[in-house]
Amino acid sequence: MYRTHNCGEIRKSDIGKQVVLSGWVQKLRDKGFMIWVDLRDRYGISQLIFDEQRTSKDLLNQAKSLGREFVIQVSGEVIERASKNQNIATGDVEILVKDLEILNSSTTPPFTIENNTDGGEELRMKYRYLDIRREPIKNNLILRHQITQQVRKYLSNNSFIEVETPCLIKSTPEGARDFIVPSRINEGEFYALPQSPQTFKQLLMVAGLDKYFQIVKCFRDEDLRADRQPEFTQIDCEMAFVEQDDILKTFEGLIVDIFKKIKNIDIDPFPKMTYDQAIEKYGTDKPDIRFGMEFVDLNDVSQHKDFNVFNSAELVIGISVTGGNSMTRKEIDKYIEWLKTPQIGAMGMVYIRCNDDGVYKSSVDKFYDQSDLKNIADKTNSIKGDIIMILSGDKDVVRAQLSALRLEIAKNLGLRNSEEYAPLWVVDFPLLSWNEDENKFHAMHHPFTSPKPDQIGLLKKDPGSVKANAYDLVINGNEIGGGSIRIHDKNIQQEMFNCLGFTKDEAEEQFGFLMNAFKYGAPPHGGIAFGLDRLVAILGGSETIRDFIAFPKNNSGRDVMIDSPSKISKEQLKELKLKQNL
Amino acid sequence: MYRTHNCGEIRKSDIGKQVVLSGWVQKLRDKGFMIWVDLRDRYGISQLIFDEQRTSKDLLNQAKSLGREFVIQVSGEVIERASKNQNIATGDVEILVKDLEILNSSTTPPFTIENNTDGGEELRMKYRYLDIRREPIKNNLILRHQITQQVRKYLSNNSFIEVETPCLIKSTPEGARDFIVPSRINEGEFYALPQSPQTFKQLLMVAGLDKYFQIVKCFRDEDLRADRQPEFTQIDCEMAFVEQDDILKTFEGLIVDIFKKIKNIDIDPFPKMTYDQAIEKYGTDKPDIRFGMEFVDLNDVSQHKDFNVFNSAELVIGISVTGGNSMTRKEIDKYIEWLKTPQIGAMGMVYIRCNDDGVYKSSVDKFYDQSDLKNIADKTNSIKGDIIMILSGDKDVVRAQLSALRLEIAKNLGLRNSEEYAPLWVVDFPLLSWNEDENKFHAMHHPFTSPKPDQIGLLKKDPGSVKANAYDLVINGNEIGGGSIRIHDKNIQQEMFNCLGFTKDEAEEQFGFLMNAFKYGAPPHGGIAFGLDRLVAILGGSETIRDFIAFPKNNSGRDVMIDSPSKISKEQLKELKLKQNL
Repeated sequence: MYRTHNCGEIRKSDIGKQVVLSGWVQKLRDKGFMIWVDLRDRYGISQLIFDEQRTSKDLLNQAKSLGREFVIQVSGEVIERASKNQNIATGDVEILVKDLEILNSSTTPPFTIENNTDGGEELRMKYRYLDIRREPIKNNLILRHQITQQVRKYLSNNSFIEVETPCLIKSTPEGARDFIVPSRINEGEFYALPQSPQTFKQLLMVAGLDKYFQIVKCFRDEDLRADRQPEFTQIDCEMAFVEQDDILKTFEGLIVDIFKKIKNIDIDPFPKMTYDQAIEKYGTDKPDIRFGMEFVDLNDVSQHKDFNVFNSAELVIGISVTGGNSMTRKEIDKYIEWLKTPQIGAMGMVYIRCNDDGVYKSSVDKFYDQSDLKNIADKTNSIKGDIIMILSGDKDVVRAQLSALRLEIAKNLGLRNSEEYAPLWVVDFPLLSWNEDENKFHAMHHPFTSPKPDQIGLLKKDPGSVKANAYDLVINGNEIGGGSIRIHDKNIQQEMFNCLGFTKDEAEEQFGFLMNAFKYGAPPHGGIAFGLDRLVAILGGSETIRDFIAFPKNNSGRDVMIDSPSKISKEQLKELKLKQNL
Repeated sequence: MYRTHNCGEIRKSDIGKQVVLSGWVQKLRDKGFMIWVDLRDRYGISQLIFDEQRTSKDLLNQAKSLGREFVIQVSGEVIERASKNQNIATGDVEILVKDLEILNSSTTPPFTIENNTDGGEELRMKYRYLDIRREPIKNNLILRHQITQQVRKYLSNNSFIEVETPCLIKSTPEGARDFIVPSRINEGEFYALPQSPQTFKQLLMVAGLDKYFQIVKCFRDEDLRADRQPEFTQIDCEMAFVEQDDILKTFEGLIVDIFKKIKNIDIDPFPKMTYDQAIEKYGTDKPDIRFGMEFVDLNDVSQHKDFNVFNSAELVIGISVTGGNSMTRKEIDKYIEWLKTPQIGAMGMVYIRCNDDGVYKSSVDKFYDQSDLKNIADKTNSIKGDIIMILSGDKDVVRAQLSALRLEIAKNLGLRNSEEYAPLWVVDFPLLSWNEDENKFHAMHHPFTSPKPDQIGLLKKDPGSVKANAYDLVINGNEIGGGSIRIHDKNIQQEMFNCLGFTKDEAEEQFGFLMNAFKYGAPPHGGIAFGLDRLVAILGGSETIRDFIAFPKNNSGRDVMIDSPSKISKEQLKELKLKQNL
């Protein structure tokens, strides 16, 4: 038996007991005649003590030979500490060691196993098994476990059934790129890894399972960006005989439950905003509403003078920064410079200071008098002490730029508090989005999303204007989940495929099984999928999902710890009837 | 709102209530003036009634237009049934329909949606979404959900953390064949899908997570046999600072808990048997111990006469079939014929009848007199009314044959009762097994399995004799789980790789990351993995795992519903820098 207790559970009430502990040497303080060792395991730290008077010479020498991260087993007596440590749960006691066994030695780790480590990202990833020994990463993984357990509990209690859908499925070129898996037994054929279990969960609704969920790995072979993983985890859900509100209600309940059970935070009912409103007011379909600074359309109060920049712009919009007049000129210039970087791409920014004496001071005083500026200030609800920041240009572009500026300012003003949570439903997404490059419509959500029932007639006449029964859950500016009511009528599904430019053969080839299933009594249904990695990160107060994944891949899709992907043998390729064509 | 109630919950106490139901038309009985419809959903069946006197003509006609598997929504009043149906929970009431909406029609399903369907396996798989509508398959999926929920609950309550390990890992040719996944971004390189998360769970122990589990998809590109799936699900577990008994105790607790919570069956403490005992007594490492018929070594009581078949055999063994003397000559001949089929491959069988008058009658009376036969009968503990069946030949071969015979007889005698459960730990597996074809040792379990500590010295001298700290959980003759204490010492791991014929470079190339991890304080650890598909099937009283998987693949690894694997486009292959070489 390696232990009677773990390193986190010994208390004052255990004093006098003989205990056996196993764990890692976190720290060793050697005073010559006395040695303290902090012994660590997942559950905590226990202090071990060896001293000349009470410990045999051999044992003392053995203790002196210990190094950081050695794995040891000790037995001894729980005694009261002379100087207590209020910072740890076991701080009242220590173990007077009688026996010590070194279970495994350790060479010096490449970075310190401390909360604040000296290891850089690359090193931490290469030695991820050491990184996980650190409290913050360990706690992230425990948090992830707690959240998935709670999700499963909530959904099970609400009659959802977790069903595993297959991982080796069929490649469907629609959407992102599939990872493919050559089949050896079926020569010349390939499986694909699922980008999501979308069609399977719909088939489970056709199958009558009524309420489905699955916490499931999904795969996308995308060109990787920072903090995007080729494999990621979804909480995937689907319900039959529901309308949009049934779904929003059910999954609002799920999120409220998680925040309550995991963080003991009560979250108010989620506000709803249409996609169009979100774009107009925040310039994004995932607004962070922890703070204000809503966009104000200033065309009518800014395009009547000689300022050509505004006059020629499709849209002039501004935000009012409460108390922002305290910004120095230097700070403002920094924002302007930042706006001009290629990643944002603005031409410049106009600002209006609302001085305490009631005078407005702007960067365009040449064109606008006090009364013009007052009109703008009034329209943006600005008062003394505020600053108004204004961008202009093409609608879509300028909104995106102002959205970025809004977030940047909020970050700098400390308005993006990671301990505050502002969830929001964004609803009424467009069904389709026009792809300039391919000169055709793409599905905004996916090809199975139902148009608003009263707009089905528009599908032929003006597809671009059709709104969908689609919704996203946004928390603090992050898209946490998204879903839709699905099409359950095979004729409407066919029409949707037409809109997307599928020929009948292509639709049949790729989704024939689903269209076929719809012939046999498909119920109305809809669902949602949450990005687990992101959800856990947000509950963990971070936006770096890699820190909440046990073994993440880097920005090139590599696992630097196991060094994968890697070359495979010629024999393997030969068996798969493949040749490399580099 | 599509429904106020589901189809399984309306009771006598609801009489008088206005309800809305949605579901599928299971059955329609049309008496002309009166129509009954059985409306089905996941939760049950409610009877709808339409009749001339209380129903409008239009509604009655609409009801007459319904067909099987139509999806409808009805509203109406709950009334008491004239003739009650005790067989269903809603059998006291029916719904007098006031409104009917057809939500979707259905063409005639290719097989009947009944408990006993007329659909063959191939058809059921092609239309799996209809097959799942059938009660037995639906219940299998619900059972699977309940079991996984309970497993998670038990393990969480015992401080285990569920951690997701990656799906895109590195190909390691050891063991079964990997499925591989070409990486587009890392040209010329490949991921592999995990055959199990073995190395990752060990790394999590090095990382100090202490107790890990995961219900996880695993992949093996094997030549498929009946009822084996290319993707399957494991309950994968690992613990640090444990010895074999700690693991057996923990996971015996898990299995006992599942049987209690899911089936309300109390299971006795699991017996233990060594691998050698299992082979000697049952001819297999996964004996079904619901019944006796243990093997008896008959060399000493059968090799002293002139019967050359026995004299020249390495092993003569028999089983005594209690009451088996009632078998007719024809039945016995059938067993002999069956034994001679190529799949069993025996040369023949000797039998001894223990007649009620105390006389023995055997198929080898020419060679053995009554006293010889009595010796054999005594040694096999046979009494009047029994029959003894004896096989002979090379040890390994004859044991396998007798094992098959034992199971065949038990099946025919009704001794393999699917409602009875006999779990068993098989322990002390050999560490290595000799592979004649490749002329080298293979790891019996896997290369990370620890030899018995007191036998490590034998690794160099006589590797074949070394026993491992490895164990299997067997229930009713099925291997449900298996695991081992792992090697945590890098030197022993290196020695193990040597035994398996890995060069130092190969070991480094494939498992360098694990060997490297072992340098930084690896704790003693061990674990186990259960085959979830099999476990669920056994709890469901079946041995056909396909019936417990939502979307299984057939014996050629094909999903006949979605028609996968399939061809992919030239563009996809080109992007992956691959060419087919058919």
